[in-house]
Amino acid sequence: MIQNFEFYNPTRLIFGKEKIETLSKYLPLGSKIMLLYGKSSIKKNGIYDKVKLTLKSFNHIEFGGIEPNPVYETLMQAVELARKEKVDFLLPVGGGSVIDGAKFIAAAIPFEGSDPWTIVSEKAPVKSAVPFGTILTLPATGSEMNSGAVITRNSTKEKFAFGSVHTFPKFSILDISVLNSLPKNQIANGIADAFIHTTEQYMTYPINAQLQDRMAESILKTLISEGPKVLSDNIDEEAGANFMYSATMALNGIISMGVPTDWSIHIIGHELTVLYGIDHGRTLAIILPSLYKRKIGDKIAKLSQFAERVWNINNGSNMEKALKAIEKTEEFFNSVGISTHLKDYGDNIDLEFTVKEIISRFKSRNIKGLGEKGIVTLADIENILRDSW
Amino acid sequence: MIQNFEFYNPTRLIFGKEKIETLSKYLPLGSKIMLLYGKSSIKKNGIYDKVKLTLKSFNHIEFGGIEPNPVYETLMQAVELARKEKVDFLLPVGGGSVIDGAKFIAAAIPFEGSDPWTIVSEKAPVKSAVPFGTILTLPATGSEMNSGAVITRNSTKEKFAFGSVHTFPKFSILDISVLNSLPKNQIANGIADAFIHTTEQYMTYPINAQLQDRMAESILKTLISEGPKVLSDNIDEEAGANFMYSATMALNGIISMGVPTDWSIHIIGHELTVLYGIDHGRTLAIILPSLYKRKIGDKIAKLSQFAERVWNINNGSNMEKALKAIEKTEEFFNSVGISTHLKDYGDNIDLEFTVKEIISRFKSRNIKGLGEKGIVTLADIENILRDSW
Repeated sequence: MIQNFEFYNPTRLIFGKEKIETLSKYLPLGSKIMLLYGKSSIKKNGIYDKVKLTLKSFNHIEFGGIEPNPVYETLMQAVELARKEKVDFLLPVGGGSVIDGAKFIAAAIPFEGSDPWTIVSEKAPVKSAVPFGTILTLPATGSEMNSGAVITRNSTKEKFAFGSVHTFPKFSILDISVLNSLPKNQIANGIADAFIHTTEQYMTYPINAQLQDRMAESILKTLISEGPKVLSDNIDEEAGANFMYSATMALNGIISMGVPTDWSIHIIGHELTVLYGIDHGRTLAIILPSLYKRKIGDKIAKLSQFAERVWNINNGSNMEKALKAIEKTEEFFNSVGISTHLKDYGDNIDLEFTVKEIISRFKSRNIKGLGEKGIVTLADIENILRDSW
Repeated sequence: MIQNFEFYNPTRLIFGKEKIETLSKYLPLGSKIMLLYGKSSIKKNGIYDKVKLTLKSFNHIEFGGIEPNPVYETLMQAVELARKEKVDFLLPVGGGSVIDGAKFIAAAIPFEGSDPWTIVSEKAPVKSAVPFGTILTLPATGSEMNSGAVITRNSTKEKFAFGSVHTFPKFSILDISVLNSLPKNQIANGIADAFIHTTEQYMTYPINAQLQDRMAESILKTLISEGPKVLSDNIDEEAGANFMYSATMALNGIISMGVPTDWSIHIIGHELTVLYGIDHGRTLAIILPSLYKRKIGDKIAKLSQFAERVWNINNGSNMEKALKAIEKTEEFFNSVGISTHLKDYGDNIDLEFTVKEIISRFKSRNIKGLGEKGIVTLADIENILRDSW
């Protein structure tokens, strides 16, 4: 049951302490650089000042205000500015949203079609992109070492992924000092995000891909052991490094080589972010327990392996182990301060409306089933949303 | 105790069944290609014919006869031919020796210094290299997805490593069908080689690099579980894929990110190959048990972790666990048909001469100590060689 695969990942990873200070080594000389960032957080935590100190020696402009869940309408303003100013290198400084946004901007600047939104909505071919390097300020999405991005369009409340061989970062700087200035709820989001990126590439069905399985389990065990230590007031520096590296490895293509993947939790979770603005990582933690319970029959082999190897649950039937592992996973999310119940995310959320709206959106996109082998049907999704309440 | 690191690996991995047949997709159009191979094995097993069928449509020449432990004098003949024929792409088809040889040829063709041997002997800077893609016929060295090579000079009986950012393969085709035609002793060599590549990047001292440790353990466990299945007459195809993928992951830079490395076993083992022509993987298996026993005090934390996590040895003191794990490792090499005693490798081998010669060579290279922190002294090396007898 071997699956063929191709792996290619040319991003240079620059990891450790005081690495933001080495930025100038990696920037192309003679370029017109566009610094990209989000809201004001990098101005408060000192990262903006550090980066600007280096950029003094480079011809550059800046564009701030990229939103969490980056928005097409905003990104197109950056595209217009970059075209006008003949920018030829982008430097996103931020978390997954700013980096994802940069990928869209990079692809849209030279895009020759009439409407750059088609890159996202219709997977219009990306024939080239402006090169870019990143400074990661929030370990979570793995965007710093992959070519994918998720972009939201406000006017249509749509949220889609795209990716291209041209949208790998040239380099990404992972400086562990950024953890010190992060709000704890964002670190918790990152833990959930990295964890569920991993399970999406693991919790399917066994194909005897032993090394890929063990590597995924390695990431999960490291997140369980190290994540909580990064939430304490005095961040354990080694735990921080382990967490940061795990989040990158969770979605740089290594653990998915030649194995089936799921991604149904992401696709359902994205809808909760679009509808209610719930943080991405939290939407995943809301959906995971009820989805795994509903599809326990299909996923029993991997769920029980996960129980044994990740949670050291060695007693009981496979079904009992699987259920216990789902329970432990839910407890883990709760332990880092993440509720796994939709009702906890705001009084404005109505379950019936949510179910109706999401099912209707999926129908309009002609979705019949999600996940490996399309096993998560629309009827399942309705049940999963209700169970997640 | 976090160590900073940079990771960069742009090799495209093409893995699976019937992948040699897709070669033409990856070859640059309009190039003058030089096919490189070793002795006659690819002509016997059908791989040569498959490759030539694709190359019919490309302007190409060929150069065969690259030795196991590729020899400078032979490689320079290829360099001369490539320069004369204005070759601009290399296609090594073989195991680590042919691929290592291709890396040297690639760097030597455009080398501007007077003596290309200085690339190897003095680490003369490699400013560019002819691009190349590989077809791997023997999983073992990991050369298919890294930038390093080991080259031997016959006239001086020297064997040194070199590497450059310019000597990563552009692509490597890992077609699991190649396993079917391999002699079992070569597969056994590959198992030992991949195993000890992994331990060289793991069996040092703990720095709380949890994910790196677990990933190294993942490779070791996979090799232990799958290696023997690849030696049976009817090769288990899934085991073959797991073995092949493990050998690549063992030395593509992933497990060494930010951790201390050893490599003393390789440096000592190389001398045994130079002196007696013993297969590389076997020289490592000869040295490992006695080296780990001699340095058990320095390596106790990692050896006992290895015992627990890889060999499931959970009883006894750390010293007892470590010793038991070394014993199990030696038994594993023996079980795949590899002797761990130097005396078994030929009547022409004299222990006293071996010890004297290797110590004298290390002294002339001004080596005081090998391994992490230089803990393997010349006195240790003498004891290790005697213990390995």
